[in-house]
Amino acid sequence: MADLESQGSDVKFHLKQYNFQIENVPRLSCTDAKAEKLISNGLPVILTDTKLVSSALHWDLDYLSENMGEGDFTVFLSDTNKFMYFDDKKIENVKDFKQPTQMIEMKFPEFVTRLRSYKEGDKRLYMQQALNDTVGRRIVMDFLGFNWTWITEQQKKNKWGPLTSNLLLVGMDSNITPAHYDEQENFFAQIKGCKRFLLFDPSNFECLYPFPVYHPHDRQSQVDFDNPDSLRFPKFQDAKAFEAIVGPGDVLYLPMYWWHQVESVPGHGTVISVNFWYKAGPTEKVQYPLKAHQRVAMTRNIEKMIIQALNDPTEVAPFMQAMVLGRYT
Amino acid sequence: MADLESQGSDVKFHLKQYNFQIENVPRLSCTDAKAEKLISNGLPVILTDTKLVSSALHWDLDYLSENMGEGDFTVFLSDTNKFMYFDDKKIENVKDFKQPTQMIEMKFPEFVTRLRSYKEGDKRLYMQQALNDTVGRRIVMDFLGFNWTWITEQQKKNKWGPLTSNLLLVGMDSNITPAHYDEQENFFAQIKGCKRFLLFDPSNFECLYPFPVYHPHDRQSQVDFDNPDSLRFPKFQDAKAFEAIVGPGDVLYLPMYWWHQVESVPGHGTVISVNFWYKAGPTEKVQYPLKAHQRVAMTRNIEKMIIQALNDPTEVAPFMQAMVLGRYT
Ligand SMILES: [Zn+2]
Ligand SMILES: [Zn+2]
Repeated sequence: MADLESQGSDVKFHLKQYNFQIENVPRLSCTDAKAEKLISNGLPVILTDTKLVSSALHWDLDYLSENMGEGDFTVFLSDTNKFMYFDDKKIENVKDFKQPTQMIEMKFPEFVTRLRSYKEGDKRLYMQQALNDTVGRRIVMDFLGFNWTWITEQQKKNKWGPLTSNLLLVGMDSNITPAHYDEQENFFAQIKGCKRFLLFDPSNFECLYPFPVYHPHDRQSQVDFDNPDSLRFPKFQDAKAFEAIVGPGDVLYLPMYWWHQVESVPGHGTVISVNFWYKAGPTEKVQYPLKAHQRVAMTRNIEKMIIQALNDPTEVAPFMQAMVLGRYT
Repeated sequence: MADLESQGSDVKFHLKQYNFQIENVPRLSCTDAKAEKLISNGLPVILTDTKLVSSALHWDLDYLSENMGEGDFTVFLSDTNKFMYFDDKKIENVKDFKQPTQMIEMKFPEFVTRLRSYKEGDKRLYMQQALNDTVGRRIVMDFLGFNWTWITEQQKKNKWGPLTSNLLLVGMDSNITPAHYDEQENFFAQIKGCKRFLLFDPSNFECLYPFPVYHPHDRQSQVDFDNPDSLRFPKFQDAKAFEAIVGPGDVLYLPMYWWHQVESVPGHGTVISVNFWYKAGPTEKVQYPLKAHQRVAMTRNIEKMIIQALNDPTEVAPFMQAMVLGRYT
């Protein structure tokens, strides 16, 4: 991280400006008791010395191209620098849904060729592929060299469920994954390039206006951070963000249900990251008042029940409106 | 009902005027196939010749006073002519809830004395008491003379559940029970005086803005019909009413979940009615799109779940707002 810190002012210079309040996520050694405490309390922290992906810090496009094997990799194409996720299985729920990105499959070398021949006006690229057993021998060795001892200890201490996947992310600088939350615990390991996270704790649900659960953009904020619609989304201005800037070797603990927008910092070239997703632990015992993330889970369950009971996504909004407007407003 | 029909224009003259659209509920013979069809379709109808309470048409204050027995009767007192129902058990859910009426218990003769000594400025009275086995022998005989054959046949044909109660209503003329819905099927038998029903089918839920389920006024409309707040309740103007005016001997079929405001027609003296409440039949099989009354039942269930899960009534409105505003609006 000497690299990132020396570039500190340069990084900040390239970051987009927003109107909401922003605090810093602490950067700590993983041996610091404060870091352990943050994780066990479900709060984000940047760990500088986990050595979680030390065995992969030499990864670059040439090395991966040579060693990634013959498997297919999922690549998203976008006309802009935004790559908003969507769920295929929910497309039919929304009439005239327009996919914000195209998803295609390609071999790794093809991806690298396209990335290197990119020129302005071309579609931008973002590879997002779970690592699997089709990768070459050297990648397998690098993978086995991850600091599994440390991360498995974290998993046990915090009573998380099993590791579900390691997503490999390879993107162009300036790519943005717009604000959303995930339903799993995540250790996000940065390998190459620099990413900025804008994080929002789960109590920001009402400030970030997620799409309906039936919508392909479920779990994504409807708010365009670059051009927020203050009439439709008046509470967006009350959002309170935490910022985390991670460079090679850094690991960000990204707690379940925490919102995150992820921006690859401009001018730092290709960005490579791997994340470690873990299922939630057994349900905590209910204590009142409910915590913000429990209310989010509850909201999701209620939406799912209503969607199922009505059996027609177009009936959900009128139903919700009749239940709430003039009654709970 | 010759009585009512001859007074038709007089009755109309005394009725309050409203801005919403009003259609008439059909008046039919109970032997008319159309009447049977309305009931089986869950639609209101006035039946003119059921003889359901013929054995009670001689009831008046003197007779009831003499024969009602020594039981206690529930009487509501109101400073106005409105008697809005509230549920005792839900009072603690709402801070500073102000009871719109007082509920007291008295013997029947005491009620009659108070009713007869009423003068302007006194609290108005409305007795609402389920008939029970403390009533005197002559009332029992009248009760046994009700047309149980006819009504039990209706219950069976329409697959309703058991009779749950016969509520005896004795009120001053001009008393009003504001708009609400009940969760049971009802044959409403008019004995003395004249009542006007304003009925709204269950699809008017969003026009009538019922109080939250946790509120003591659950199932009642929040809209003051005499002074509707068009900012809070903009859809009230879209409500579509049916009107039913019933006099002695008439029976109104009042379907479950249908909204009703009940006005004792001014100038017709003491009003006596008995209703016959039946539990709903077994749940119909679900067919899409859901019927309006099924959506009402579903809304109630969702509200109940949320109330229970949050464990604090004051958290329900913020939760509902976060779920819906800017997301389903
Ligand atoms: Zn994510
Ligand atoms: Zn009622």
